Amino acid sequence: MVRVLLLCNARCNIMGPNGYPIHSAMKFSQKGCAEMIISMDSSQIHSKDPRYGASPLHWAKNAEMARMLLKRGCNVNSTSSAGNTALHVAVMRNRFDCAIVLLTHGANADARGEHGNTPLHLAMSKDNVEMIKALIVFGAEVDTPNDFGETPTFLASKIGRLVTRKAILTLLRTVGAEYCFPPIHGVPAEQGSAAPHHPFSLERAQPPPISLNNLELQDLMHISRSRKPAFILGSMRDEKRTHDHLLCLDGGGVKGLIIIQLLIAIEKASGVATKDLFDWVAGTSTGGILALAILHSKSMAYMRGMYFRMKDEVFRGSRPYESGPLEEFLKREFGEHTKMTDVRKPKVMLTGTLSDRQPAELHLFRNYDAPETVREPRFNQNVNLRPPAQPSDQLVWRAARSSGAAPTYFRPNGRFLDGGLLANNPTLDAMTEIHEYNQDLIRKGQANKVKKLSIVVSLGTGRSPQVPVTCVDVFRPSNPWELAKTVFGAKELGKMVVDCCTDPDGRAVDRARAWCEMVGIQYFRLNPQLGTDIMLDEVSDTVLVNALWETEVYIYEHREEFQKLIQLLLSP
Amino acid sequence: MVRVLLLCNARCNIMGPNGYPIHSAMKFSQKGCAEMIISMDSSQIHSKDPRYGASPLHWAKNAEMARMLLKRGCNVNSTSSAGNTALHVAVMRNRFDCAIVLLTHGANADARGEHGNTPLHLAMSKDNVEMIKALIVFGAEVDTPNDFGETPTFLASKIGRLVTRKAILTLLRTVGAEYCFPPIHGVPAEQGSAAPHHPFSLERAQPPPISLNNLELQDLMHISRSRKPAFILGSMRDEKRTHDHLLCLDGGGVKGLIIIQLLIAIEKASGVATKDLFDWVAGTSTGGILALAILHSKSMAYMRGMYFRMKDEVFRGSRPYESGPLEEFLKREFGEHTKMTDVRKPKVMLTGTLSDRQPAELHLFRNYDAPETVREPRFNQNVNLRPPAQPSDQLVWRAARSSGAAPTYFRPNGRFLDGGLLANNPTLDAMTEIHEYNQDLIRKGQANKVKKLSIVVSLGTGRSPQVPVTCVDVFRPSNPWELAKTVFGAKELGKMVVDCCTDPDGRAVDRARAWCEMVGIQYFRLNPQLGTDIMLDEVSDTVLVNALWETEVYIYEHREEFQKLIQLLLSP
Repeated sequence: MVRVLLLCNARCNIMGPNGYPIHSAMKFSQKGCAEMIISMDSSQIHSKDPRYGASPLHWAKNAEMARMLLKRGCNVNSTSSAGNTALHVAVMRNRFDCAIVLLTHGANADARGEHGNTPLHLAMSKDNVEMIKALIVFGAEVDTPNDFGETPTFLASKIGRLVTRKAILTLLRTVGAEYCFPPIHGVPAEQGSAAPHHPFSLERAQPPPISLNNLELQDLMHISRSRKPAFILGSMRDEKRTHDHLLCLDGGGVKGLIIIQLLIAIEKASGVATKDLFDWVAGTSTGGILALAILHSKSMAYMRGMYFRMKDEVFRGSRPYESGPLEEFLKREFGEHTKMTDVRKPKVMLTGTLSDRQPAELHLFRNYDAPETVREPRFNQNVNLRPPAQPSDQLVWRAARSSGAAPTYFRPNGRFLDGGLLANNPTLDAMTEIHEYNQDLIRKGQANKVKKLSIVVSLGTGRSPQVPVTCVDVFRPSNPWELAKTVFGAKELGKMVVDCCTDPDGRAVDRARAWCEMVGIQYFRLNPQLGTDIMLDEVSDTVLVNALWETEVYIYEHREEFQKLIQLLLSP
Repeated sequence: MVRVLLLCNARCNIMGPNGYPIHSAMKFSQKGCAEMIISMDSSQIHSKDPRYGASPLHWAKNAEMARMLLKRGCNVNSTSSAGNTALHVAVMRNRFDCAIVLLTHGANADARGEHGNTPLHLAMSKDNVEMIKALIVFGAEVDTPNDFGETPTFLASKIGRLVTRKAILTLLRTVGAEYCFPPIHGVPAEQGSAAPHHPFSLERAQPPPISLNNLELQDLMHISRSRKPAFILGSMRDEKRTHDHLLCLDGGGVKGLIIIQLLIAIEKASGVATKDLFDWVAGTSTGGILALAILHSKSMAYMRGMYFRMKDEVFRGSRPYESGPLEEFLKREFGEHTKMTDVRKPKVMLTGTLSDRQPAELHLFRNYDAPETVREPRFNQNVNLRPPAQPSDQLVWRAARSSGAAPTYFRPNGRFLDGGLLANNPTLDAMTEIHEYNQDLIRKGQANKVKKLSIVVSLGTGRSPQVPVTCVDVFRPSNPWELAKTVFGAKELGKMVVDCCTDPDGRAVDRARAWCEMVGIQYFRLNPQLGTDIMLDEVSDTVLVNALWETEVYIYEHREEFQKLIQLLLSP
């Protein structure tokens, strides 16, 4: 505080031994001081210290300090004299939280610093598995050579401690890092027989048996990486597609990150933005927000950072959370006055549950006019129920908020509850909608505008592990305990009912697949199996990075399916 | 009690002024006495009194006495000297409960008694709307002439009190009673213009405007009835159908009666048993029990009586109900050791919720071998979860019990919860199953055995009226009340979640219709709108008769749809 007083009239651009005062403030993590300095002289945020030529961000020792600087507009990718970014420093110092803040604010995970090293090169020597995962998840390539021609995977193979080396190589293998040349001799038989030219390639469909026990140093001459798909095509999508493509995004709160990661992989492999790959995008809850992000041309990498940054603000306190931060976020991203119909391609639908009536009804928030259906009205009475807003009057942020009002997590938005109640996996309802849309066109004499669906891509927010339930007998009342057990049973049952009904993965997928197969539509369901149950409101960076890592592993294991999907999406 | 002692050694066949002692016991509703007499001399149950030639059943003054006699094997349709059955007497005496007991034990609703009058003829003079409804619901014809050539509808038109007459005629009109000849003059314009030759015919698709205010005595010369379909076909079903027909039956407890009533109408109109009309029958909960009843060739009229009789035994006490009576009932009806595969045609599937795992999974109880699917296993772990029994080992009564374990109504059956949790309307899952079955046949090189679906008939257990929900804002916590409101909200929410998820009528129907239309399958959804919300465990005969009445009204209003359905079902 003394310093603050001093600074009030002091000049901020006087150099000390550690550089300008801002650098000292950063070095000692004096947030108040640093904020004061920047508010007095905003140019200080870009000032470089004399010794390393490093910006204050390089000096940030924890997430809070880094976040403060980034919020005030510092350049996340500014380099020191040696060419290192703040991310290089965070990795070298093993500052995981700091690295996550930088990555989620757009730090280049593949920036080449001193000696051409990327952060991943540096991470290899640190024995920090979480850091390596985070960098790869945020796009770091494992086969970028440094100035000495060494790739990160090669450095991994040189790690002295056998245990560490094996752990990291195993890790890399699960996302497809491969040993390419020189041709390897003395390959263990059980692996060599499977794929002689790529002893460690993972051509099996199911999770590969990770057993590097036989791995010896001589096998690890060079490691290349096949995560980057070989089938990248630069061609733009054919505007004259004869058939429509449908993308469906499940609900799942912060686990929407998994959808983002899947979409990034699809965009990377196809070289085309999601917006241009699909004609229809349906989403529930978090999937609805992402559908709108696609509609409004927001990059998925941007959304990934945004999700990481927003979760701490949105999921603050206890359930139900204040909806203010979520609504502010939505308004900021989509505009306070933007209407659903302001952008019309691709066609987007968000599911919501109209809960001012019993039974509740599904409502779709659309950016196009709802098809008129000839089906007989479900209820004759209660015509006094207010109809929902028309698409041209519907605010985008409100639609997102209404679809994402997960009960008990947030308070409902007016009369809407989370769309996940009726359609946590929106595929069946999206297909129903498209069918009704086409029928409506035919009725209106516009049959020439009807395009049939040819591809349905359904992305999930991760499968939780299946766990046995031992308390299924809770209802068996033995008289003395009847009441207590019934109460307990009701609670268990409640959980089971909610889980059954909102399970986006079980029958919803079987039904959609059967429907598509019957009609001749290509159906792709992509949903990584997670190692742990992740909550909608998970805020731990480590847990989320791990989930994204599992997504990367899943993408690698299902690369043939991805490849087939991309080829179909790009074919006219 | 004195009499009992006397009777112990007394002879029972000594005639008194009211007939044998059994008749006196019945006259004074002395259940104990009557039981004692019958146990001493079982022939007494058939003894006729000297004055009317009536059996003890004719003398039963209330439901309890009638039930006691019927349980002991008396003939429900035995006639008095004048030719009246016990039902005639019950109707004449306005004994509604007694009439229901007789009807649900197989009394012929159309029995011709004295002067050729059916019970419905007699009911017309009694101003008892409930009785008239009950008789018609249980199959009484409104146009059977008595010995004087008068039909019940004609008698209704002669009722002296205008109010009563209008009420009863209105009632009859709603199930299609029509004024046929002589041609009517002076028809009110707004009705005459709609259908000049049948001024009161109801050719409109939607509920007819019931306004008989202009009805005068001269209009009511003769009333005929069109409820009995004109398109009855005696032809047996073609065994060589080229396409398959699927019947899907929703869950809904005692409301299964509505399904029964719909099936009776279909059987009556087609002249073919349900078993022969369909190749696949899928059912959930009560619909599952009915699917098994169809499989085991039980007549729907029998099941209707059975449901009325069983509900009082099954829904006794408070929730959760003892499952003993339900299980006894199922064992009695289907046999204690009958296996699912004992009868193989039509193919039957019952939905159950496997709740020993989280997320719970749908399990189908089949009377055929489950199709092998190539889909990737959903979970790799937990292979130690016990697989469900094979169809050939699965007891029929257990399958019915497992599908029908509606939570909070009954305790779960082992690890199974009610199929309604995942598929209260089993249509989508049945279609998925049939698709997978056919795919499996193709994979096994038996593509020639594949029959495509051509008709899907989905029967509901009645739609509850939609009601506005005013408490959707229960979650908005103003701080002091936050906790209380959250608790309240959780309860409301629980109801909403359960209702959303188990709603068999909303999206489930839209999805199934869209799926069928896309594939070119004829889809029929039949589900009467009810005037009130009826619980799964409703025991009031009046309420249930009213629901069946509404079903009859629905069948009449949708007669064109029914007619189309029957024609399609009977075409080869």
